[in-house]
Amino acid sequence: MITIALDAMGPDAGPSVVVEGAAQVSREEAPIRTILVGDGVEIQALLKRQSYDRTRVEIVNTTDWVRQDEKPAVALDARPGCSALVAADLVAKGEADALVGAGSTGALILASSRKLERVEGVRRCALATVHPTEQQHGPHDDPFALMLDVGATLTVDAQDLVSFAVMGSAYSRIISSIEKPRVALLSNGTEPTKGTAAIVEAHAILAGMPSINFVGNVEGLDIPRGTVDVVVCEGFLGNVVLKMLEGVSEVVSDIAKDAYARKFLWKLGLMMLSEGIRQIRTMTDWRQYGGAPVLGFSKPVIKAHGRSNAWAIRNAIRVARKTVERDLGGTIRAGLASAPARAS
Amino acid sequence: MITIALDAMGPDAGPSVVVEGAAQVSREEAPIRTILVGDGVEIQALLKRQSYDRTRVEIVNTTDWVRQDEKPAVALDARPGCSALVAADLVAKGEADALVGAGSTGALILASSRKLERVEGVRRCALATVHPTEQQHGPHDDPFALMLDVGATLTVDAQDLVSFAVMGSAYSRIISSIEKPRVALLSNGTEPTKGTAAIVEAHAILAGMPSINFVGNVEGLDIPRGTVDVVVCEGFLGNVVLKMLEGVSEVVSDIAKDAYARKFLWKLGLMMLSEGIRQIRTMTDWRQYGGAPVLGFSKPVIKAHGRSNAWAIRNAIRVARKTVERDLGGTIRAGLASAPARAS
Repeated sequence: MITIALDAMGPDAGPSVVVEGAAQVSREEAPIRTILVGDGVEIQALLKRQSYDRTRVEIVNTTDWVRQDEKPAVALDARPGCSALVAADLVAKGEADALVGAGSTGALILASSRKLERVEGVRRCALATVHPTEQQHGPHDDPFALMLDVGATLTVDAQDLVSFAVMGSAYSRIISSIEKPRVALLSNGTEPTKGTAAIVEAHAILAGMPSINFVGNVEGLDIPRGTVDVVVCEGFLGNVVLKMLEGVSEVVSDIAKDAYARKFLWKLGLMMLSEGIRQIRTMTDWRQYGGAPVLGFSKPVIKAHGRSNAWAIRNAIRVARKTVERDLGGTIRAGLASAPARAS
Repeated sequence: MITIALDAMGPDAGPSVVVEGAAQVSREEAPIRTILVGDGVEIQALLKRQSYDRTRVEIVNTTDWVRQDEKPAVALDARPGCSALVAADLVAKGEADALVGAGSTGALILASSRKLERVEGVRRCALATVHPTEQQHGPHDDPFALMLDVGATLTVDAQDLVSFAVMGSAYSRIISSIEKPRVALLSNGTEPTKGTAAIVEAHAILAGMPSINFVGNVEGLDIPRGTVDVVVCEGFLGNVVLKMLEGVSEVVSDIAKDAYARKFLWKLGLMMLSEGIRQIRTMTDWRQYGGAPVLGFSKPVIKAHGRSNAWAIRNAIRVARKTVERDLGGTIRAGLASAPARAS
């Protein structure tokens, strides 16, 4: 049975959503065991209210946890017994196969990097996330594409971009069942000579790697369109792009609400249009698609959104299980084998 | 009377829109003279069909021009007599006060940099453009904010970002009549320590400059919201962001069209909602707002959109006149005077 370590502390709604998600998973057929890491008294009290399989949910008590507004490095230094570090340690020691957290993103990534090894050949880990697209992807017609890095790094070199491409391709294949995901570098033009020095060099390397379905550079236009399955960029750029998409979503939502409040005729129109509006909102609200993987560690690490409910936590746990079963680490290792070695 | 040199060649619709725009300006009260630079025979034929003031429109014949799909540097080297270079030269020699073009952006910028001087203290010029925002700006409640650089540069240093901030602030003050435009650096967090080394250094410099209303860093979220009046970033990032906004606009438009075609009930809803939909479209279609300035040259250079019609060209000419009258170059020079000198 696969075991998932859950940092139970830190989501916006508090540990209850994590506890409820774990209880739900324990009632389902898929053989998954979870370890809830956090305030034992609180978790026990929350768990009592749930119906769950006692053989498949465990609690590990910790005394503290990292808040969203804290500096992760400072907090982890000060509190070695916090839930993020203890949960990552369970994975490092082999007591769990993967790590899921819904609290501070920085604390989850930093705790993982302090406890877990990276896949051989990966120098920098990357946070990947799905964003809504007009075009659909893969055999299940997913209305979203994967983008990485969206914030684990700031600036990176060509080899880092190459490893991001390999990791994104592996994750997309495993989770979205796309046999040969189309992978592209995000740049300011489609020609191989366009972009920063790191992008131009990564382009040349990726073009020579048979293990990757590299289709070249894409531009900003291609992000909402969804021209490719995996978009690769440095963390600084990915962060700006991701937050911008979030902002566009909120603005569209505001305008719709505003119209709704103002005019009766518009109300009628909105009711008739509800399916269309829902479609736009769905497209711009990727939060429903659950967890974002931190790629590059030898064991899977999944960041669930801070605003997750129990269903989103349940989905993140199932995604974690899938990456364990389908050997994400091994797939990344194999993909990197065809990359030229880093000069060091 | 102020004279504007117009590169008449290269817009998507051909020189007719530029000729028509110049004719219209000559019929209006504002004292503006234009010089149409391009294929003299074609321009003369087009002009004959217009009603215009002969004392205020002139033609300078050239034998060639740079196409949108050509590499600007190669094309300008091969054709020193092309319309972009000849038009820029008229401005350099003082025969015109400003330059407007609607053809290849790269050719306009490169021709300007070969012929025109830069404002003292400016090492790199920047292409600025307005983008639609939820919040309104300035005394005229403009529904858009300025962003630069969106593609004249790739990566830049801290001093370049500082000069972009000064130039954007000056342009926003002159064109949108905002007395103290709020200026921000685009980064991956609002703290002064967030971002690349260049951003962190520029932040520290701008915080100490009384001539700029510097409000700190903004994030991707703030672009569609419009939290500030001027967003400053390197050209690579600005290019990706701008094209992404364009993509979002196209996707929203596609969805609306698709819904329209499919369902009668939706049609009815769309008709009722037309004002709301128009509002969203307006917000996401910044092309209506006319020209984008290339900032940093001692004389104003305005890039009109390739898809401009005669009205958009007329507006770009009027914007160029405003920047001459209100001394954009002098305003930038004064703003830069309080910046620390570049170590060189």
